[in-house]
Amino acid sequence: MEFLKSLSPSESLEIIESFSVDPKTEIVSIDHALGRVLSEDIIAKDDVPSFNRSLVDGFAVVSKDTVGAKETSPSFLYTRGTIHVGEEAHISLTPGTAIGISTGAMIPHGADSVIMEEYVRRTSDGIEVTKSVHRGENICFIGEDIKKGSVVLNRGKKINSFDIAVLSALGHEEISVYTKPHVAILSSGDEIVSIRETLTPGKVRDVNRYTISNLLKDEGALSTFLGITKDNLEDITKKLSSVHGFDMVLVSGGSSKGERDFLTQSIKKLGGSILFHGINIKPGKPTIFAQLQGMPIFGLPGHPASCVMVIIRFVFPLLWKIQGRNRVERKKIRGILTTNIPSSIGVEEYVRVEIKEHEDRYYITPFFSKSSVISSFTRASGYVVVPQEKEGYEKNESVEVFLFS
Amino acid sequence: MEFLKSLSPSESLEIIESFSVDPKTEIVSIDHALGRVLSEDIIAKDDVPSFNRSLVDGFAVVSKDTVGAKETSPSFLYTRGTIHVGEEAHISLTPGTAIGISTGAMIPHGADSVIMEEYVRRTSDGIEVTKSVHRGENICFIGEDIKKGSVVLNRGKKINSFDIAVLSALGHEEISVYTKPHVAILSSGDEIVSIRETLTPGKVRDVNRYTISNLLKDEGALSTFLGITKDNLEDITKKLSSVHGFDMVLVSGGSSKGERDFLTQSIKKLGGSILFHGINIKPGKPTIFAQLQGMPIFGLPGHPASCVMVIIRFVFPLLWKIQGRNRVERKKIRGILTTNIPSSIGVEEYVRVEIKEHEDRYYITPFFSKSSVISSFTRASGYVVVPQEKEGYEKNESVEVFLFS
Repeated sequence: MEFLKSLSPSESLEIIESFSVDPKTEIVSIDHALGRVLSEDIIAKDDVPSFNRSLVDGFAVVSKDTVGAKETSPSFLYTRGTIHVGEEAHISLTPGTAIGISTGAMIPHGADSVIMEEYVRRTSDGIEVTKSVHRGENICFIGEDIKKGSVVLNRGKKINSFDIAVLSALGHEEISVYTKPHVAILSSGDEIVSIRETLTPGKVRDVNRYTISNLLKDEGALSTFLGITKDNLEDITKKLSSVHGFDMVLVSGGSSKGERDFLTQSIKKLGGSILFHGINIKPGKPTIFAQLQGMPIFGLPGHPASCVMVIIRFVFPLLWKIQGRNRVERKKIRGILTTNIPSSIGVEEYVRVEIKEHEDRYYITPFFSKSSVISSFTRASGYVVVPQEKEGYEKNESVEVFLFS
Repeated sequence: MEFLKSLSPSESLEIIESFSVDPKTEIVSIDHALGRVLSEDIIAKDDVPSFNRSLVDGFAVVSKDTVGAKETSPSFLYTRGTIHVGEEAHISLTPGTAIGISTGAMIPHGADSVIMEEYVRRTSDGIEVTKSVHRGENICFIGEDIKKGSVVLNRGKKINSFDIAVLSALGHEEISVYTKPHVAILSSGDEIVSIRETLTPGKVRDVNRYTISNLLKDEGALSTFLGITKDNLEDITKKLSSVHGFDMVLVSGGSSKGERDFLTQSIKKLGGSILFHGINIKPGKPTIFAQLQGMPIFGLPGHPASCVMVIIRFVFPLLWKIQGRNRVERKKIRGILTTNIPSSIGVEEYVRVEIKEHEDRYYITPFFSKSSVISSFTRASGYVVVPQEKEGYEKNESVEVFLFS
């Protein structure tokens, strides 16, 4: 057996994030772009709006004509037709006149503002304006929303509903995105049985398969489940040897030393190499990172809670890189600890917590549960990271909570 | 024309949320359950784990046998075989003996703790234990994760990855969820053209169609786009008369008074009724809520930014009800305003903001952009609500930001 020193979380992440990947791209309709990652900058090919638009129902005017106008001494303007929404403004405005205009309609040449209907009294041949307007009032100018030639969305951005709004405003029916990473999932362990099977003494159901595939789905990746392997070199090697063409391989299980050894041995037997074995974290220490035929492989802890934390902290960063995403900010919130969190120096610890709001402040209460316990995740809102160099946190300390969603 | 008073946001929500809905249910595989809403409580039919499990590699012992054990005066125990992971523990432990056990394996009858391998020295016929263990140490007990008979997930919960982990731990292959709401989307306006068409002067592309369908998708609903109607009673009535079997209808457009009137008239002509017309909010005032053949209809403002805010604040609560969801907490964060937000009394105002973190605090900077401007949403993290009774917020005030995602 080979001796490999456990790495610090930052050393591990450095190795993980420097893994060489080659994101592919594809063209998708904007109807299917939500949650995908842009593989090119989007540069505005038009101004939005493409003409000066009225923001209200009223009259297009020259603002100077309304100077000093009020209820008791209105300005009089002759009216010269109406511009309807959707039509080109063919008439031009001359000083002393006003043109009727509806919300969204094109501002006529010569006008520099729109007076709202509410501040207008109609006469037989014109209008009395009872309030002055300033230059530009009630107009959305050409390019005020989006300027032609500007970079509106950056390569590497995960596309949300608002980004699609911008793409549609610019007339993009299709865009280029990175292909979804495809991850192979393998469960290992003599005790693991499919959830379809009846549970006999000593056996447990394959929880990690579902946790992993759904965490990946939520993060925008595809996965294929390759089955459950037994805890022996032959079976693991056989399964691993048939894994081709995936962007990543996740093997969960191997909580005992023997099992972990089978995984590293089989990877080496197949010509791969172990990049590290063990991270100074709790839970999740017995994590393996390796490469096999250019694919990154994680050996994840079998305990469901450990498995989740390693995915969130160490697998996601590589997934983001494969997705072509820009630097991803983890969602977090600050709050006050309601109780101490003890921890050991030299280990980065992840503690699930609950968040409660009271009088404009957030109060953070840790769950102290064993690494095999999964149910506490459904009640937790996030987790606190106790860094390696800290002996825990104290009650009433302000801490950062990384949110699960 | 009928006069209908604008309502306060809370009066509007009361009418919206009291709309009678009838959520349907369906059975889905847990492979397709992510993001769906549970239509039944999940009661644990098993204990998880279903047997006492070892959390470490080591020896199952009686804790009393290790009292006082240390490096210099170890306790001696005879070894009696090994229990492997995945197998039933057929041997029983008697005081004075130890049974080898691996992580995840079944604790034998008679043992009450596990001593880690690290604190054991092997002899020819037994082990020397160099550290005492307390009762229960390194064991995950039957039902410690999930207790048989307990309610583990509640009806109305939106299912996340961890919930699926719990469902798989309990052996649920399928669950009952509410069917996804199906929403009809209609764009109205003489200026609106499909994004496929070339933009001619006076026309704008149909942005709302995409914004609406993606906001709905993100919230777990399906949508069908029914097309673009012209601004006249005949066209709107014709389109609306063919809308059947949807859970909700969203008509966007109608920023000018004439257009809004066509929508209300056509709903009434078809036998529907207007429940309210106008909410005291900014942006989004000209919002219509109506019912037609039992379906709720929203007339949404045409300005993209107004449309988004009305969907988030007023359409989502009804969507959640149709989805059968429990009370949904909107995601939010508190921070310090970097500048004043002026607002008028009598109107609830929504102001898009950017959030920056600096030295453990969040700083909130508003974007002041016109209601027709959509691009600022892609840069904003959320929005601040200025309540009706407030004349805005002041710089350095602590405010709540509702997050867009």
